[in-house]
Amino acid sequence: MLSKNKIKLIQSLNRKKDRDELGLFLVEGNKMVEEALRSDYKIETLVCTSLFGENLSELRFNAGEIIETDKDSIQKASLLKNPQDALAIVRQPASGKPQLQLNTSLYLALDFIQDPGNLGTIIRIADWFGINAIICSENTVDVFNPKVVQASMGAIFRVKCWYTNLESFLSEVSAEKTPVYGTFMNGDNIYTEQLTKNGIVIMGNEGNGISDSISQLITKRLTIPTFSSNTSKSESLNVAIAASICCSEFRRR
Amino acid sequence: MLSKNKIKLIQSLNRKKDRDELGLFLVEGNKMVEEALRSDYKIETLVCTSLFGENLSELRFNAGEIIETDKDSIQKASLLKNPQDALAIVRQPASGKPQLQLNTSLYLALDFIQDPGNLGTIIRIADWFGINAIICSENTVDVFNPKVVQASMGAIFRVKCWYTNLESFLSEVSAEKTPVYGTFMNGDNIYTEQLTKNGIVIMGNEGNGISDSISQLITKRLTIPTFSSNTSKSESLNVAIAASICCSEFRRR
Repeated sequence: MLSKNKIKLIQSLNRKKDRDELGLFLVEGNKMVEEALRSDYKIETLVCTSLFGENLSELRFNAGEIIETDKDSIQKASLLKNPQDALAIVRQPASGKPQLQLNTSLYLALDFIQDPGNLGTIIRIADWFGINAIICSENTVDVFNPKVVQASMGAIFRVKCWYTNLESFLSEVSAEKTPVYGTFMNGDNIYTEQLTKNGIVIMGNEGNGISDSISQLITKRLTIPTFSSNTSKSESLNVAIAASICCSEFRRR
Repeated sequence: MLSKNKIKLIQSLNRKKDRDELGLFLVEGNKMVEEALRSDYKIETLVCTSLFGENLSELRFNAGEIIETDKDSIQKASLLKNPQDALAIVRQPASGKPQLQLNTSLYLALDFIQDPGNLGTIIRIADWFGINAIICSENTVDVFNPKVVQASMGAIFRVKCWYTNLESFLSEVSAEKTPVYGTFMNGDNIYTEQLTKNGIVIMGNEGNGISDSISQLITKRLTIPTFSSNTSKSESLNVAIAASICCSEFRRR
């Protein structure tokens, strides 16, 4: 059985304030919980029905506490409309600066991404393209927001999101050794420009793009050209779509 | 003032059955309603506050009926959490087969896309890459679902979505003149394969990919390679992200 207090705890993880105070976050859904159990994240509590992970019995031992219950109880606790057979309360990893190899590796940096679905999708894209860390401005949506976790489809366990003052961070990056890229309306064509193997690619806010203070720290302005014949130029790309095209272009070469 | 009946009508447009019977759909948000008014779609009713479109007075005449009201009334009628200053009831265009130039142009075809956000985003991607029609399997989510309309950010007014029996349609396509592409785990690397200027690119269902019957009609199997060093191979791409990488690869050459 799931106690009232446990249900309260689970639901409190929908709020950033509570997540931060407790140092916990919520993972929902069979596939996601399985990925959590396989990761090196610390699982405080696994809540599941007997249907979850019949073939995963060894994995269950990776959870500190296991509560086997029925679907109704999971439904009560869940933040999802259609919960599955498992959810997990997971400890947030240390928030310190990850090891960055700025002179050899490629990273994404996010300047005020607001939408949880976009952040989750960008983490998934980074995972696909072998980018193991994302540098997030402090006003970017919290990576442990349940909607971000859900949209990342497990990539959150493999890609480190580091929150920092993006302007200060970029100011200290060596302009010679680490190109800083961003996409703009008036940059160089990303399909034909020479792109380096290492560097930082900045993705900007959904409504306003890259902020002025960050723009000034970009050393290489790129454009994803449109192929539309529409003369009113009202077409636009979602930021996660733009991120995927950038990553694809950097990696294919 | 917005009558109770009008509010009822607006909210009924959240249901496919009602949309189909009435031949109408709902457009919400200032930018989206402006795009609707600028398009050749027939606007039955424009509902807006006095704040909407102070500079758009000429556009208002594109609406059959204009109801100026207050924000509270829009709030009551709206399907959005945070409605803006305008919504519009719009007539669905004829659902007939669009003019397709299969021997010269590129098209997307969708095999059972279920998520409204994904369909809206794919329409937006098509718009960006100058693809003016999408062929949708009959079980693909309805393009006039309000969430699809919203996610398309206006691209819905420029890209035609045509619903048909995808299997029959593809069976009649000339294999010599029109290559049919699809992405699979075991296809040829999309970054290095020769791609034609024309053709049909199939995107499959979110959970199950391209169905067996459609797979058999694909003449060229492609793969978007992952660059992840993750050995468990659990990373995956959202279907809209995969669509954007495909479109980018076909168009950049």
